[in-house]
Amino acid sequence: MKISALMTSAGINIGICVLLWSLYSVLRKQPAFVRVYFGRRIAEENRLLREAFILERFVPSTGWIVKALQCTEEDLLAAAGLDAIAFNRILVFSIRIFSLAAILCLFGILPVHYFGRKTHHLEIPSEQLHMFTVQNVEVQSRWLWVHSLVLYIISGVACFLLHIEYKHIARLRLLHLKRTTLNPGQFTVLVRGIPKTANESCSSDVDDFFTKYHASSYLFHQVVYKAGKVQKIMTGAKKACGKLDHSTSTDTTLDQSRKAITYPCCVCGASSNSFQLLPTDEVAKNIDNEECAAAFVFFKTRYGALLASQALQTSNPTKWVTDLAPEPDDVYWSNIWLPYKQLWIRRIATLLGSLVFSVLFLLPVTFIQGLSQLDQVHRKLPFLNGLLKQPYISQIITGYLPSVILLLFLYTVSPIMILFSTLEGPTSHSERKRSACSKVLYFFIWNVFFVNLASGAVISQLNSSSTTKDIAVQLAGVIPGQGWASLSSELMQLFGLIYNFIIKYVLRMKEDTAFVPTFPYHTEVPKVMLFGLLGFSCSVLAPLILPFLLVYFFLGYVVYRNQLLNVYRMRYDSGGLYWPIAHNTVMFSLVLTQIICFGVFGLKKSPVAAGFTIPPIFFILSFNQYCRTRFLPLFKTFPPRRT
Amino acid sequence: MKISALMTSAGINIGICVLLWSLYSVLRKQPAFVRVYFGRRIAEENRLLREAFILERFVPSTGWIVKALQCTEEDLLAAAGLDAIAFNRILVFSIRIFSLAAILCLFGILPVHYFGRKTHHLEIPSEQLHMFTVQNVEVQSRWLWVHSLVLYIISGVACFLLHIEYKHIARLRLLHLKRTTLNPGQFTVLVRGIPKTANESCSSDVDDFFTKYHASSYLFHQVVYKAGKVQKIMTGAKKACGKLDHSTSTDTTLDQSRKAITYPCCVCGASSNSFQLLPTDEVAKNIDNEECAAAFVFFKTRYGALLASQALQTSNPTKWVTDLAPEPDDVYWSNIWLPYKQLWIRRIATLLGSLVFSVLFLLPVTFIQGLSQLDQVHRKLPFLNGLLKQPYISQIITGYLPSVILLLFLYTVSPIMILFSTLEGPTSHSERKRSACSKVLYFFIWNVFFVNLASGAVISQLNSSSTTKDIAVQLAGVIPGQGWASLSSELMQLFGLIYNFIIKYVLRMKEDTAFVPTFPYHTEVPKVMLFGLLGFSCSVLAPLILPFLLVYFFLGYVVYRNQLLNVYRMRYDSGGLYWPIAHNTVMFSLVLTQIICFGVFGLKKSPVAAGFTIPPIFFILSFNQYCRTRFLPLFKTFPPRRT
Repeated sequence: MKISALMTSAGINIGICVLLWSLYSVLRKQPAFVRVYFGRRIAEENRLLREAFILERFVPSTGWIVKALQCTEEDLLAAAGLDAIAFNRILVFSIRIFSLAAILCLFGILPVHYFGRKTHHLEIPSEQLHMFTVQNVEVQSRWLWVHSLVLYIISGVACFLLHIEYKHIARLRLLHLKRTTLNPGQFTVLVRGIPKTANESCSSDVDDFFTKYHASSYLFHQVVYKAGKVQKIMTGAKKACGKLDHSTSTDTTLDQSRKAITYPCCVCGASSNSFQLLPTDEVAKNIDNEECAAAFVFFKTRYGALLASQALQTSNPTKWVTDLAPEPDDVYWSNIWLPYKQLWIRRIATLLGSLVFSVLFLLPVTFIQGLSQLDQVHRKLPFLNGLLKQPYISQIITGYLPSVILLLFLYTVSPIMILFSTLEGPTSHSERKRSACSKVLYFFIWNVFFVNLASGAVISQLNSSSTTKDIAVQLAGVIPGQGWASLSSELMQLFGLIYNFIIKYVLRMKEDTAFVPTFPYHTEVPKVMLFGLLGFSCSVLAPLILPFLLVYFFLGYVVYRNQLLNVYRMRYDSGGLYWPIAHNTVMFSLVLTQIICFGVFGLKKSPVAAGFTIPPIFFILSFNQYCRTRFLPLFKTFPPRRT
Repeated sequence: MKISALMTSAGINIGICVLLWSLYSVLRKQPAFVRVYFGRRIAEENRLLREAFILERFVPSTGWIVKALQCTEEDLLAAAGLDAIAFNRILVFSIRIFSLAAILCLFGILPVHYFGRKTHHLEIPSEQLHMFTVQNVEVQSRWLWVHSLVLYIISGVACFLLHIEYKHIARLRLLHLKRTTLNPGQFTVLVRGIPKTANESCSSDVDDFFTKYHASSYLFHQVVYKAGKVQKIMTGAKKACGKLDHSTSTDTTLDQSRKAITYPCCVCGASSNSFQLLPTDEVAKNIDNEECAAAFVFFKTRYGALLASQALQTSNPTKWVTDLAPEPDDVYWSNIWLPYKQLWIRRIATLLGSLVFSVLFLLPVTFIQGLSQLDQVHRKLPFLNGLLKQPYISQIITGYLPSVILLLFLYTVSPIMILFSTLEGPTSHSERKRSACSKVLYFFIWNVFFVNLASGAVISQLNSSSTTKDIAVQLAGVIPGQGWASLSSELMQLFGLIYNFIIKYVLRMKEDTAFVPTFPYHTEVPKVMLFGLLGFSCSVLAPLILPFLLVYFFLGYVVYRNQLLNVYRMRYDSGGLYWPIAHNTVMFSLVLTQIICFGVFGLKKSPVAAGFTIPPIFFILSFNQYCRTRFLPLFKTFPPRRT
């Protein structure tokens, strides 16, 4: 691949980005799309924009970028929660470390690469890309110390920055937990695996148990029954109730005689909106024979609830299982009644499912990888031969088409993974999303990084025409293609736009104002982390990738802040639990980088340089161990507020 | 290797075993060695044997075997604790599963192997050993379904038996925790990482903290000071005090003016012998400027101590770290004062150290592996040529010498691993031993199993004379050699015997009656588990190994029970925590067996049989997940006794 081909690809992407961003800046001012682009604000602040016709509406503008940049951390925390802050800090960390890496690599390493061999240099645009990678350094070169030095600096600074961020987020998490006074979840324990007894009702069992063993702080409880039909009616009632709140609904399936009842949380005085349960006596009448599934137990103090949630209750760890209850809005009701004994089977089954899915996904990835090599396209799709002879078309196909197809395939990953996570049986929305986030991350690292590289190497070997030197270059093409395109698509909210259009103009239905999506952390966190991994592992080997990556992170910073502030609603919050995932991924990326460099320096027959890649691995692992001791416990539990 | 060579090796071992066991049955009746063979009884029950000369003393007898077999589980629990029971159950499980495996494999699989190829059969003693292994089955044989079936039965029954044992030990653990009423450890919390304050003394800091946050159940506390010299004096005093108790010592280093003081545990009324601390005021006088390292905090109720130990105390997880205190006799005093913040470095460093040690150990193992192949010995040690020409000598060398040398090398492993475990900074003896046990186990599995196999394969390839078919056969030779020999040496207590002899007859010192060793779980558990792994992985491939293994486990059952009852003292007890280690190892062994069989059946070009090895893997992993949910939490913490 030549520099010019890369530039063409980048140019197309920049063009599309500018176009889409301008389009966005216009569309966001149209009243018709206000629900798509300002969902959060609408839901919180009622209508702001009136449907007046002003010419200004149709002029692209940049004000939204300024707004997104100006917003402070407090605003973001208030608007989108601690998870948003954690996500934002991931981007800030990436921008910082890759700015440094870009400066060091472009000015330090790129010249070493370019002048690494005494050859005749062409003009830069028609130079082959591998002239700028480590491929161009001579075997047994004495200049590899530059690479080692840069690696040391990057690893050291990355650890330093990670420490700052971890500390910052841990502090915010503690503040966040202290600040939320109206937080019924902290007073409540979710009890599962309540054993059947000869006693007449499950409710009295729960009462007996907690009065006996937690007498000092036990307040009262609410049993959740596993009731097929009643469950469905409850779910229906809950939905309907949500609609009634906005008093716009007429066509509900609500059985009007059975209303959902809202228990005011007597501890904090707040009315917890989601603890909508049928009154116990009414349920008991209907479902005497139904199994008691779980119970929410309320305590007088936060400390009491915390202690009760941490202790093992009986000698059988699958009975009377206590956990801190999720926040009312966070409860994933359809999983609450799952028998606790079943969960281990579900966990194994979903693990298996994810593995099989990851393996089956190899097929499209391998095919697409083939597309980016032009002679493969000639062979596999011979009818395109005429078209491919034209230089620009061929550059588009090699630089752009594979990314688009791969992107479309990757869109199927997160729905499938979140389905797996749902089947796993988490009791809260945030846990479900976080588990999906980990799954998608493993999937990305495995499939996009390892397999992409491996299949590329295999194809190259089959061809015998090109060597593995193109791998880093191919990755460089991924970033403008997939990265920038996906950001633009996120900004444009293509799905939301089309959905809105169909609802409004095709089906002519009234808009559903209650539905505002939550931020898809399970797709966006892995995406950002994957590009980070790509950046670290290519930094010293193919530094040309870094400017593209830096542009991606800058754009991402603007876009995601804007989306968090305007589009998505914070219904639930895991309290910054995405940060440990990000931290571990960066640690993994840094270690992998060292291992890759060890291999590359070994191939260059420079044992000294290869040897110098070993000590940082131990340094990084030690740092990780330190963080696990110092910060991680705060993300697993929290210090009690003894009130 | 021929059958006759194997039989020679086995014969020599049987001879040596019978000789040593007879010798043991004589020696144990000699009053001179009573401290070696009845250390525990002497320490507990005072002298039983008088120094009368009876002829019976010099006649070998079998009564001790009957005694060892007759003793009930209650006796063993009383004499040697729950760890001994767990170890005993490992042996019982092994005997049961390998009896079944031996029956199935010898009657089902051995004929398939022997008649697997249509060749002329020699007389059995001069038949090559590989005639009895899977090597002799034809490629694409239809008889491999027998192997699959046997594998299924073994895996299923192993899981069933493991479930019974896990349940049994969990029940015993609960009973054990309930039964021990005089157990100060359960009322005590060990606090580390106490921060420095402007406050005048550390003691008042601890008092303030626990009075403030655990007012309802806090009783009092005892600070442990980090004091260089004072620490040493205390250790000396402790030792001396132990000697004084038996009032036999005259030559102690005790500073008589400073006596160790025994605090009676005011909760249970028992005098806890090891909480021997200097009175606070005296210490404070000497070491005003010394750092406060840790504190034992005593609670009114077990439940209060348990809750305090489980909660995170402050927003910094490295300060005010609370754990349940070890039992008085279990406290590892020299690690108590280690700064908590340092522990993560120690953990990383010992991990590194163990890795390096495991890698360096490859050298002797590879050399020894070479010895078991006769032509290698010829080449490496040419001066032995004349000797090696004699058939019996060569059979001894191939069958016996390598095991002895390897055994001697392996004797260095456990002291080094326990040194690493000490450096890691555990606060109790039992934790230290358990951690060493895991390390030795990893080392054994890695070095003896994987590397032994791999180096054997490499050597075979270098020779080009023999193929990998000898590997299973070589392993078969390991069991009579290493297994039986190590059991006999354990029974004979060679080290103890020599030590005792030197002390008594060479140095003419008075015997140290206070010193009775504790059972070396960290060497014996890994040894037994390694033979289990060997048994599972060779069962269907080289069934001839099973009778030898079964003999090993039977002998082990007798020997270890005898040793636990008579020789070793139970000073501390981890409460059956060795069982989860054993369970995980068996799970690993079963999965590895399936994977090895997958490979072997694949080489035999039998895709159906290979495919049938996949489902058991998932079954085994599911079973493991079930046990982790159902039983493992009981081994990490325990349900509170609310008294």
